[in-house]
Amino acid sequence: MNIAIVGLGVIGGSLAKAFTKYTDHFVMGINRTEETAVQALKDGAIHKIASKEDLKDADIVFMCTYPHHIARYVEENGEYFKKGCIVTDVCGIKTEICNILPDICRRFGLEFIGSHPMAGKEQFTYTASEAELFKGASYIIVPCGASETSVETIKNIAMQLGFGMTCVTTAEEHDRMIAFTSQIPHVLACSYVLSPCCPKHVGFSAGSYRDVSRVANINETLWTDLFLSNRKPLITELNVLIDNLTLMRNAIDENDPDKLRELLKASRLIKEGLGEGV
Amino acid sequence: MNIAIVGLGVIGGSLAKAFTKYTDHFVMGINRTEETAVQALKDGAIHKIASKEDLKDADIVFMCTYPHHIARYVEENGEYFKKGCIVTDVCGIKTEICNILPDICRRFGLEFIGSHPMAGKEQFTYTASEAELFKGASYIIVPCGASETSVETIKNIAMQLGFGMTCVTTAEEHDRMIAFTSQIPHVLACSYVLSPCCPKHVGFSAGSYRDVSRVANINETLWTDLFLSNRKPLITELNVLIDNLTLMRNAIDENDPDKLRELLKASRLIKEGLGEGV
Repeated sequence: MNIAIVGLGVIGGSLAKAFTKYTDHFVMGINRTEETAVQALKDGAIHKIASKEDLKDADIVFMCTYPHHIARYVEENGEYFKKGCIVTDVCGIKTEICNILPDICRRFGLEFIGSHPMAGKEQFTYTASEAELFKGASYIIVPCGASETSVETIKNIAMQLGFGMTCVTTAEEHDRMIAFTSQIPHVLACSYVLSPCCPKHVGFSAGSYRDVSRVANINETLWTDLFLSNRKPLITELNVLIDNLTLMRNAIDENDPDKLRELLKASRLIKEGLGEGV
Repeated sequence: MNIAIVGLGVIGGSLAKAFTKYTDHFVMGINRTEETAVQALKDGAIHKIASKEDLKDADIVFMCTYPHHIARYVEENGEYFKKGCIVTDVCGIKTEICNILPDICRRFGLEFIGSHPMAGKEQFTYTASEAELFKGASYIIVPCGASETSVETIKNIAMQLGFGMTCVTTAEEHDRMIAFTSQIPHVLACSYVLSPCCPKHVGFSAGSYRDVSRVANINETLWTDLFLSNRKPLITELNVLIDNLTLMRNAIDENDPDKLRELLKASRLIKEGLGEGV
């Protein structure tokens, strides 16, 4: 197949490198800064620097630019895309993009599928990209009404690129799950280290402190954007967490061993049910 | 020196094994169940099974029984101890024991020092003990008014046994720090996995989920006791955490990027100040 990758940052660049390293697909790269595209060609990450006119040859277009640029790009260049091709993205939050892109694509006879390759780095540029970025990671797919055949095509490509698993879901479920699995641990780590005890922890701490506080070394600009772009699901999950913490707090405050033991047992059973034993 | 270890469970047994493996001190063991003491002698973990009459030969007595047995044991057998010897314990919570033991010991002409060897296992019996349990761990000392010489003696012994560092503090500071570094991460892990999202996390999660949820596979009976035995400091820390989480939650809810960025930046600066960069 012919693959077009629009935006050769850390994710687009890594996809390009994985495509050329692990598959036989033909890879075209489009990048606003020409210099980066030239470097990618020199690295063998892409087979061709493409213009928008070349989009007519692409069977799949990966939109890897900033989320708010994607809709505008497809609006403005949709006529150049091959009719019936698959357009997908790599955004970490899906509700907004999956509300807008399917309609735009349909107007041009294209098929949109939401993608979230669950890997990343805190550096965003092409220089940080690597073919192995996705090794063993999960590739999440939001079909947005696309045909089963197209969803299968994306699934197969994910496995070819080195992902460990694919996972099909809705945009709403995706965003709530990401709030739980990724955003809550970051809010938590940052809230935890704000305790006046934190600067004095050396000598008193071991693995538990290290694990909870690890991601508090945060890029505050990036994560402010990420949190605010997923406000509703994140607030839902934060409320759930604060409520459960408060239940535990009250059982301790009321010196109620039975209630506390019940709560802790419920937690243990959930972990055991997931096969996540000690 | 002559060392007596009263209570050959996982901590007492490991201390005995570390003493006989790494030092030249003479180690006597006292255990309620004779069978365990015999096994320890056979293993070379102790040099002698001691009776209370042998306590007169001990320069340091490590009380490694259940916390609530320690005071009674010293009350009942204090007359057998060598005058001027050091009595210490291994309890993970220090306020209560450090309030009671110094007076009891003083009555018999003994010197009490609180100890918390920061290592452990979820199994409590002698069979789980090992000489390497303390490798690199922190040994916390609460002097309780003991002489500097005696505190130095305990410090030196900790380093001989393989601990990585010693740390001298007060009982109150100790208990607050333990609430922060160890107990809060456990309450947090258990509260976190109670979210309805948790059982569905596979495919959406990576390192952050794993780190925060790890210790939710909890022994609920043990941790109920641990939490309730440190109620006040733990409630203080839980309130601090819930307050900070609520600050973050409100900044997100109010869609206030400046406030949110400030909070996250404060967290990053704390981690950076500790040299705990990415």
